[in-house]
Amino acid sequence: MKGRIMTPFRVFGLCGSLRRKSTNLGLLKYAQENAPRGIDVKLADLADVPFFNADLENQPVPAAVKILLDGIDQSDALLLACPEYNYSMAPALKNALDWASRAPENRLLNGKPAAVLGSGGGMGSARAQYHLRQVCVFLNIHLLNKPEVFSNAFNGSFDAEGRLIDNRIQALVVEQLTALHSWAQKVCP
Amino acid sequence: MKGRIMTPFRVFGLCGSLRRKSTNLGLLKYAQENAPRGIDVKLADLADVPFFNADLENQPVPAAVKILLDGIDQSDALLLACPEYNYSMAPALKNALDWASRAPENRLLNGKPAAVLGSGGGMGSARAQYHLRQVCVFLNIHLLNKPEVFSNAFNGSFDAEGRLIDNRIQALVVEQLTALHSWAQKVCP
Amino acid sequence: MKGRIMTPFRVFGLCGSLRRKSTNLGLLKYAQENAPRGIDVKLADLADVPFFNADLENQPVPAAVKILLDGIDQSDALLLACPEYNYSMAPALKNALDWASRAPENRLLNGKPAAVLGSGGGMGSARAQYHLRQVCVFLNIHLLNKPEVFSNAFNGSFDAEGRLIDNRIQALVVEQLTALHSWAQKVCP
Amino acid sequence: MKGRIMTPFRVFGLCGSLRRKSTNLGLLKYAQENAPRGIDVKLADLADVPFFNADLENQPVPAAVKILLDGIDQSDALLLACPEYNYSMAPALKNALDWASRAPENRLLNGKPAAVLGSGGGMGSARAQYHLRQVCVFLNIHLLNKPEVFSNAFNGSFDAEGRLIDNRIQALVVEQLTALHSWAQKVCP
Repeated sequence: MKGRIMTPFRVFGLCGSLRRKSTNLGLLKYAQENAPRGIDVKLADLADVPFFNADLENQPVPAAVKILLDGIDQSDALLLACPEYNYSMAPALKNALDWASRAPENRLLNGKPAAVLGSGGGMGSARAQYHLRQVCVFLNIHLLNKPEVFSNAFNGSFDAEGRLIDNRIQALVVEQLTALHSWAQKVCP
Repeated sequence: MKGRIMTPFRVFGLCGSLRRKSTNLGLLKYAQENAPRGIDVKLADLADVPFFNADLENQPVPAAVKILLDGIDQSDALLLACPEYNYSMAPALKNALDWASRAPENRLLNGKPAAVLGSGGGMGSARAQYHLRQVCVFLNIHLLNKPEVFSNAFNGSFDAEGRLIDNRIQALVVEQLTALHSWAQKVCP
Repeated sequence: MKGRIMTPFRVFGLCGSLRRKSTNLGLLKYAQENAPRGIDVKLADLADVPFFNADLENQPVPAAVKILLDGIDQSDALLLACPEYNYSMAPALKNALDWASRAPENRLLNGKPAAVLGSGGGMGSARAQYHLRQVCVFLNIHLLNKPEVFSNAFNGSFDAEGRLIDNRIQALVVEQLTALHSWAQKVCP
Repeated sequence: MKGRIMTPFRVFGLCGSLRRKSTNLGLLKYAQENAPRGIDVKLADLADVPFFNADLENQPVPAAVKILLDGIDQSDALLLACPEYNYSMAPALKNALDWASRAPENRLLNGKPAAVLGSGGGMGSARAQYHLRQVCVFLNIHLLNKPEVFSNAFNGSFDAEGRLIDNRIQALVVEQLTALHSWAQKVCP
């Protein structure tokens, strides 16, 4: 009797904040360490991804960009940690998607399932997340509607290292991963 | 009888595209070269402004950021050339505002008059401009309502060098500068 | 040999404009008259649907609302014709969704597939459509990303009766219906 | 010595909720009853304002609409109480602005100073307020940036009658009225 090899559901997490103790990174790390069985979360590193500039499109892709694009390509879904800077997205997250959007025929993002979560002020980065949702329409990313994850960065939900310690949000992050898995099975059967 | 020294109205233009022949830069250059008498337009250089990262806030501000912040400080109003990348703002423009927002008590942007214009696909960067407008609410930038400037980048309004050659948009850019001047006199008397 | 009974894919169209010769209604009528085989389009009548008012929730639902809700309940997907009034949605369309959202546990709209199209000024109601997309996040309506349908109401795409006569938009409306059908089969298998 | 007759600053409040005990109405009533000296707040009644329908434009304006438009015309500024229904505006508020926008050359709203406040779920109607801000761009309403007023409708800030009883929000409402007055003196000198 042959065993069936289960392929894990591969989630690639992108964090819009470059800060080492970022609470948005804390959300992704919690997802990574507590992903339900069968879900594998890897995290992108955006620190060395330069601003997209169309003048550079004929040059070789910078190394950090190459690694980013490969990570997206080898994933089944994206998990977008979306900080809110001044009522909209963090440039580093938007810039990562802009780079990925330049693949021929948008093949890296077209039809990709994704979920968004975020940590911020009183509204938990909601204002930025709705801008990100509009971006996903153009990119034809299939973004999960619910559960939405809005986490307060300043009310004790995170420790001084940016680790998520709030039980309610912890459960929500795991719930979202599970919902993303189900969603991906529907939209990318 | 002594003549009265007229101080020009100092406008500082920021362009979200880093491309050399950018049509958004073309809008700003047209504004600069055709500003009505009494209006002086200078342009920022965002090419070397790094991504904002809160971890670096205790370090000296990078030179390119220092020049950017000084330019904002020494201006009476901002002219924001807002490309649309994937239905939202270009990261370089958002990032410039994020840096400026970190001045103590938001003193560089608080109450600053500004106008937005842009060039893009069929909607002339409109989708990005409305996101930028939301950013200005938080920053308490007093953004001009009208005229809005939406310029099509692909229908012959610009030459191959990115120079604005469409008469209607040319007139609109000048009209917007004049309106910005009047608006600034009201909100920053 | 027994024939297989095909159940048609039932689409329910809601039009935000109450005008008799509305170009947005024209889009829906074109969809209805030219739906691909296997797709059945019915149109809602919002003319007598009153403003939602929570004070009236304990009273019997008005007749026009009852018919609207039944139409939604008996459909497989929604087709939302979204005019743009003053840069946002037409109240009659938003109000119809608000009424539908009051069903227990949001059972009328939760997980419903839908598409949005619209006719308007130069941007073809785009600004309103992005607001509608945000509404659909809360309602957990699964809104099709693409193709987006933006139709110019004033450039000859419609005749004086509001009938759609532009070939490109006609094809796009049919393409959207087909895409909606495929999308619904994925998200509501 | 003759006394100088002070003309009060006339604010006209519009409430998007038609509910009798609406917390959004509660915000407006608090503003009315506690307006600083020299500020006079009147409230609109939107209960009988029908949906705008361009087919009716040649007919006499309905009585409730006439009263609404006169109220706007006789005011110096608007105070918009903006509930959030399903992540966007309440149709009754949007509809009132749509009616007002039909005056020749937008003369009722063009250049009008205004402020927005709202009560809702955890984000205090913020998502709806940003949609309303986009509407104001088109209408050339000069909307106050700050202070923003986001009030939680469900955490005890209002009593069972919808009266505002939260000290912090009470102070914020008065602060906003004062800021609106200053803003109006700038933009409509």
